[in-house]
Amino acid sequence: MIHIYLDAMGGDDAPNCTIQGALEALRNDPELEVTLGGPIGEIEPLLKECDDVRSRIHLDDAPEVITNHDAPVMAIRQKKNSAQVRGMLMLKENAVDGFVSAGSTGATLAGGMFRLGRIDGVERPALAPLLPNGKGFFCLIDCGANVDCLPQYLPQFGVMGAAYLRCVQNMENPRVGLVNIGAETEKGNALAKAAYPLMEQAPFHFIGNVEGRDITADVADVVVCDGFSGNLILKFMEGVAGTLMGIIKKEMMADTRGKIAGLIAKPAFRRVKKTMDYTEVGGAPLLGVKGVVVKAHGSSNAHAIACAIRQAALMKRRGLVDAIEKEITKQLKED
Amino acid sequence: MIHIYLDAMGGDDAPNCTIQGALEALRNDPELEVTLGGPIGEIEPLLKECDDVRSRIHLDDAPEVITNHDAPVMAIRQKKNSAQVRGMLMLKENAVDGFVSAGSTGATLAGGMFRLGRIDGVERPALAPLLPNGKGFFCLIDCGANVDCLPQYLPQFGVMGAAYLRCVQNMENPRVGLVNIGAETEKGNALAKAAYPLMEQAPFHFIGNVEGRDITADVADVVVCDGFSGNLILKFMEGVAGTLMGIIKKEMMADTRGKIAGLIAKPAFRRVKKTMDYTEVGGAPLLGVKGVVVKAHGSSNAHAIACAIRQAALMKRRGLVDAIEKEITKQLKED
Repeated sequence: MIHIYLDAMGGDDAPNCTIQGALEALRNDPELEVTLGGPIGEIEPLLKECDDVRSRIHLDDAPEVITNHDAPVMAIRQKKNSAQVRGMLMLKENAVDGFVSAGSTGATLAGGMFRLGRIDGVERPALAPLLPNGKGFFCLIDCGANVDCLPQYLPQFGVMGAAYLRCVQNMENPRVGLVNIGAETEKGNALAKAAYPLMEQAPFHFIGNVEGRDITADVADVVVCDGFSGNLILKFMEGVAGTLMGIIKKEMMADTRGKIAGLIAKPAFRRVKKTMDYTEVGGAPLLGVKGVVVKAHGSSNAHAIACAIRQAALMKRRGLVDAIEKEITKQLKED
Repeated sequence: MIHIYLDAMGGDDAPNCTIQGALEALRNDPELEVTLGGPIGEIEPLLKECDDVRSRIHLDDAPEVITNHDAPVMAIRQKKNSAQVRGMLMLKENAVDGFVSAGSTGATLAGGMFRLGRIDGVERPALAPLLPNGKGFFCLIDCGANVDCLPQYLPQFGVMGAAYLRCVQNMENPRVGLVNIGAETEKGNALAKAAYPLMEQAPFHFIGNVEGRDITADVADVVVCDGFSGNLILKFMEGVAGTLMGIIKKEMMADTRGKIAGLIAKPAFRRVKKTMDYTEVGGAPLLGVKGVVVKAHGSSNAHAIACAIRQAALMKRRGLVDAIEKEITKQLKED
């Protein structure tokens, strides 16, 4: 059995969609148990029509709720009866096998850092979502955990991202690239310039710099950058895709020809949407902490929550945390 | 008459497309003169079928060509008979009214900085292209001139970007935003956090932080960031748009329905392409130097070159350099 702790109050549509997501995940995986963490009085009444999986649902009363308005580090320190704190402590004590939240990213990070703790040798844990590039997915690391980075963090992001793809996505020799503003070695800001030679020495298949226009061109499987750039990339990708789809829709609705084409092309556009939907592969794992932690998108629907739970279970089954620990130890020895 | 110096050897398809672009610009604007700078022996034979505008074309023999492989600052120092050096010096002496190049960005920057010079009070000149957001255009500044920025550069970018939109695009009160990873004031990396209060005090309409997903959502007219982030945004926008259009094409070609829809929707997709085509508004002006300098995209076709020349002429006619000088003086007095 794999046992995942779910922050039941995290996310825009919580606790309704978190509970529905948990039920979906449990129905798809008979070897799964889920603990729902949150104010029990709010959660229990919503557990309806789930007799088929009810025996694999546990409730953990966490009456204190951390919202996006709370200062994360302070909240983790003070709200000891929140799902973020209780879940991370249960994970630390091996009472559960993974933690999933669609709530405050900052609280998940702070909980991971200060309640669960880092893997020995890891300088900074990092968020590593998989994003679509048309051919498949690439791992973007870090996408927001570390907005100011020292050069030596970046090769570790590469090590962790490559371990993730090898371990969980069965990719043999992931190509690791460094986000930069030119393809040439000597290009970049101070951080990228200092990180480049460290990336060359790191124990992964380093393919050099990746420019903005190549990030979604399937030239690298692991795209490494500081958390400021990564967050910009993550959100800008959503923004550009949304804006472009909006323009296409507007232009197709502008005349009868376009309207007819739009109707006929509906299945094709549905497939496009599916290709671009990165919630299918789960949320963003927080790599580098001593346990399986997945941060799902705040706007996750029930299916996205189910995917994040499935992903956390897979990370545990494949032994990702041990794999990262091994790789980081190897990297430190080589240095 | 407005007189623009064009780096005839700059760009992927130079000198053919630069010359064709110059001819298009001259034919569209009877009050325009163009000097073509480059090896005269290569340029002159290409000047065919242009008797109608030949009297407004001048040739400046610049036998030394700076390529993308040259180290920019070194090239500007050593290749004194290059179009970049000769053009910038002519601009400085008011022998021409503007300089346009689709060649090495670094050489244009170095030429602007060291041969032409900064406007008094400007800390760092910056590249400021206009990019499409579906509703119109926004000015992204800096998009690559300054990869490492001090906080005080950013409000100046805002001042220059706003002056550009006011002066050349007739926008009354441009909304200026700061690229950041959250909407809240306290979010960001060290640079963004330090720049925020300076942006609040600056003499423009500051609307606060702009997240990645809002950059193309028409919430700000001037989008301010360091040159590393800006270059990432510029190129990633191209990349995501290209990838998404590729996915759409692939999915529409995947079945007969989609193929038919694609044929019917052709005019709509042509309009989408036109909406997204930012070469129509010209290249990226280098704001903050003592003269009109426009960097066109390296892959510019003849029409894009013509647009960049038209844009440079407009910047001169509207007195943009004086306007920026005035605004920067005002900002410094308020400090």
